[in-house]
Amino acid sequence: MKKTIGIIGGMGPLATADLFRKIVLMTDAKCDQEHPRVLIDCNTNIPDRTAAILSGGENPIPQLAASARTLERAGADVLMMPCNTAHYFYDGVTAATKLPVLHMLRLTAEEIDRRKIRTVGLLATDGTIQTGIYERLFEEYGVTVVKPDAAGQKQIMALIYDGVKAGNAAFDTAPVRTVLDGMLASGVEAFVLGCTELPIAFADYDLPYPVVDPTAVLARAAIEFAGCKVKNA
Amino acid sequence: MKKTIGIIGGMGPLATADLFRKIVLMTDAKCDQEHPRVLIDCNTNIPDRTAAILSGGENPIPQLAASARTLERAGADVLMMPCNTAHYFYDGVTAATKLPVLHMLRLTAEEIDRRKIRTVGLLATDGTIQTGIYERLFEEYGVTVVKPDAAGQKQIMALIYDGVKAGNAAFDTAPVRTVLDGMLASGVEAFVLGCTELPIAFADYDLPYPVVDPTAVLARAAIEFAGCKVKNA
Repeated sequence: MKKTIGIIGGMGPLATADLFRKIVLMTDAKCDQEHPRVLIDCNTNIPDRTAAILSGGENPIPQLAASARTLERAGADVLMMPCNTAHYFYDGVTAATKLPVLHMLRLTAEEIDRRKIRTVGLLATDGTIQTGIYERLFEEYGVTVVKPDAAGQKQIMALIYDGVKAGNAAFDTAPVRTVLDGMLASGVEAFVLGCTELPIAFADYDLPYPVVDPTAVLARAAIEFAGCKVKNA
Repeated sequence: MKKTIGIIGGMGPLATADLFRKIVLMTDAKCDQEHPRVLIDCNTNIPDRTAAILSGGENPIPQLAASARTLERAGADVLMMPCNTAHYFYDGVTAATKLPVLHMLRLTAEEIDRRKIRTVGLLATDGTIQTGIYERLFEEYGVTVVKPDAAGQKQIMALIYDGVKAGNAAFDTAPVRTVLDGMLASGVEAFVLGCTELPIAFADYDLPYPVVDPTAVLARAAIEFAGCKVKNA
């Protein structure tokens, strides 16, 4: 009997849609009924995570916990959050539910280890970067983390907020490419797309760089948890 | 206060992902919090609708009703089904919930009327075609419906089941194009993509024909119901 996937979403909505689409496309199924059941709460009332961590913005845990309980009541067997920064509040979410909560960042560190990548470039929001959450995890696996410098980080934030979140198809990616090229030259083997808007940005703006996509890593883990088949696995 | 959108999904999962993505992309929002809240039950336990209508397959109403009640309990204010064939069971769904259920096919007929299209080509599953559900609605608006002939209908079914639902990127669309070209020659002004897998097929297989996309029509109605802004509206 297949299990039901529960997604605490809305951080942002397009990243939630991206995870859902990846779960569907990465499932090896010949008809609707071979796909996992997926429950989604795209809860756009969850306050901004970066603002909460860095500038005293509203605590997102009550809304995250409310979504966790909503999905548990609706019949989910496992929960996940397609938002890197939200993992800063991971313990607050697990405290609100009896269900297991897949940890996207830990799954990503395991994937990097599996691929034998030793130096990664970390692309993420200011909030995720400043929490050091990815760095501590990667350290466990002996992976070296290279971050953009302050000016480069501003370009990554612009790509996330002024590009993807604002739905701006005309966003100029030239400054971002300069940042990424510089990081590659310094020894980065692959970029961790450590914000769920970034896989969308890299696809929509045709940024041709080697990447590890935590959303795809999470989609694969979700399909496997549900007891369904992963394509080309 | 914005309202919450509830989607009875899984018919199929990719069509559900397509509606969700269109809701996100068609919303005029500068940050996560300006997007509608969306609850989705991608319920892949719902039996095949066409099989139920045409060949005595399992009745989908109990599962459709269960999803309706799940979404109502979770806090949805309005429900919708991104599956044309499922609208054959529309009354069974409304009977299971106190919430309004947007009728994708009626909204589509209204959109065709608004665009002053007088002759449409109806592309849909055997189940939808044989129920006559679209034809009766279009008749109310004085719109003439042209359907593929029996051989053409087989090509449309292959596009839906062997192409999109099977995730077959290499599906040969030449026979489908021949069918569509013939319908255009007979006076069709636009094709109604009367199966939610068809907007995906037309996008993924680059089929360059004038269309009315009921999924996009439904996405717009959902955003408006939620009290959010539609892009370029």
